[in-house]
Amino acid sequence: MPHIAGTAEQARGFLSQHVGAGSSVGLVPTMGFLHEGHLSLVRRAKRENDICSVSIFVNPLQFGPSEDLAAYPRDMKRDLELLSAEGVDLVYSPSHESMYLPDRSTLVTENYLSRVLCGAARPGHFDGVCTVVLKLFNIITPDRAYFGEKDYQQLQVIKRMARDLDLPVEIVGCPIVRESDGLALSSRNIYLGEKDRAEALVLSRSLDKAEDLVRVGETGVKSILAAVREVISGSPSVALEYAEIRDADDLAPIDRIEKRAVCALAARVGRARLIDNRILERRDS
Amino acid sequence: MPHIAGTAEQARGFLSQHVGAGSSVGLVPTMGFLHEGHLSLVRRAKRENDICSVSIFVNPLQFGPSEDLAAYPRDMKRDLELLSAEGVDLVYSPSHESMYLPDRSTLVTENYLSRVLCGAARPGHFDGVCTVVLKLFNIITPDRAYFGEKDYQQLQVIKRMARDLDLPVEIVGCPIVRESDGLALSSRNIYLGEKDRAEALVLSRSLDKAEDLVRVGETGVKSILAAVREVISGSPSVALEYAEIRDADDLAPIDRIEKRAVCALAARVGRARLIDNRILERRDS
Repeated sequence: MPHIAGTAEQARGFLSQHVGAGSSVGLVPTMGFLHEGHLSLVRRAKRENDICSVSIFVNPLQFGPSEDLAAYPRDMKRDLELLSAEGVDLVYSPSHESMYLPDRSTLVTENYLSRVLCGAARPGHFDGVCTVVLKLFNIITPDRAYFGEKDYQQLQVIKRMARDLDLPVEIVGCPIVRESDGLALSSRNIYLGEKDRAEALVLSRSLDKAEDLVRVGETGVKSILAAVREVISGSPSVALEYAEIRDADDLAPIDRIEKRAVCALAARVGRARLIDNRILERRDS
Repeated sequence: MPHIAGTAEQARGFLSQHVGAGSSVGLVPTMGFLHEGHLSLVRRAKRENDICSVSIFVNPLQFGPSEDLAAYPRDMKRDLELLSAEGVDLVYSPSHESMYLPDRSTLVTENYLSRVLCGAARPGHFDGVCTVVLKLFNIITPDRAYFGEKDYQQLQVIKRMARDLDLPVEIVGCPIVRESDGLALSSRNIYLGEKDRAEALVLSRSLDKAEDLVRVGETGVKSILAAVREVISGSPSVALEYAEIRDADDLAPIDRIEKRAVCALAARVGRARLIDNRILERRDS
């Protein structure tokens, strides 16, 4: 079993006992209800570091007032079994009260990358993400921290924060893990009924379509997005929130695919808000 | 001579070579043009840590558009001589360009303590302070960081940031250092002509008056502030910006002095904006 720490002091106590000079610490920040996507991060953190730590914290600061904070799925017993099987050393699982004092007044904000895509629809979301991730970094002081590319914008925002604030931690992005039929793994997939789950497949299929078009030479963002939207419109219960193609590094809007771009989308399917994305890269012939 | 680092990489390189397991690092963040107030922090940092580091950086992010960034006094040669005489190990003195990339977009904000007193007159000032101090902490990773109580509000804001973000650093406040006639040391005193300097003495004298009143049993904030303002009005070239008495910990407004309070003031004297403060504490008889 991993060591389980419920407070910053407990986590620091464990680390001060088990992290020797020159040994490295990896951190995988999660909101729990773990799936194979999380576990792929855990395996990489385990492989690349002497100590592998995982945080489980459903962060209220990154949920809007009308979002699914209360409903967000939780299963600590199963999470701990999964992490135990992976040989994780430390699980940091604080209470809300131990993370946020009633009179807290400090916030970390990222004011450029976090204003578009999901940030436009979820004001304050990325401030909440940055703030909690920075707190976790300060408590665990990892050498490397692992984030999934499924939350592509989050990964870019965290990389920017780490760069801008000179954080002494390497931010490692890891590939999206998908079901065999293409659905990107997400804790929120639990919200999907059978029919909604089938209809949600248009999201990954629309990204396949975008990738196919770029492979055969299409570079016009408008044309690609029209094709993406057409695929998604085949599923009437999928309500697209946005489908955009932007520069993969700084998320700037683009008209043509000239270097690495990302096609990112968000949609409501039944009770679930799902996101997915794909890197689009022109192959020079 | 101390080792001089101009970039984060150079500072980290020095520290990785010279900080062994179990040895401690102290940091004194400054904007240079050092005086005895700074040196009192340096001596304490030196006494309490194995490695003593000082940063010198006139932080553009904490100056408003109409403030004295360009005019702020600088004398790196003299600063280095002073720090050399104190036996400082590392001076981190980055360029603006190495600290702030053109597309930086991350800011640390403190939204409660920093809204009053100087924060009310200097919007964005404490965001700039928090952001640069957090960057310095991430570059130097000190065990302890030393700040003067002369910038009382700044000290409280930084303590709050450290608490809220779980920073693994102890924030140490150090007493105000004064000239023999009472003037609080400040790099900005260089702006004062002879006459202004003499008139500026009403600032510390008004705080003496407040302290005297509390000593003889006065606890009413209104009465004490009236006496403070009366002393200051004796110097016509001192334009008071604010004189306030607040709770010493959370800077909340108070009517009576019941526990530790702070009397804080800011004034323009000629070209200089000066601040000063005094802790007021009721002696139970």
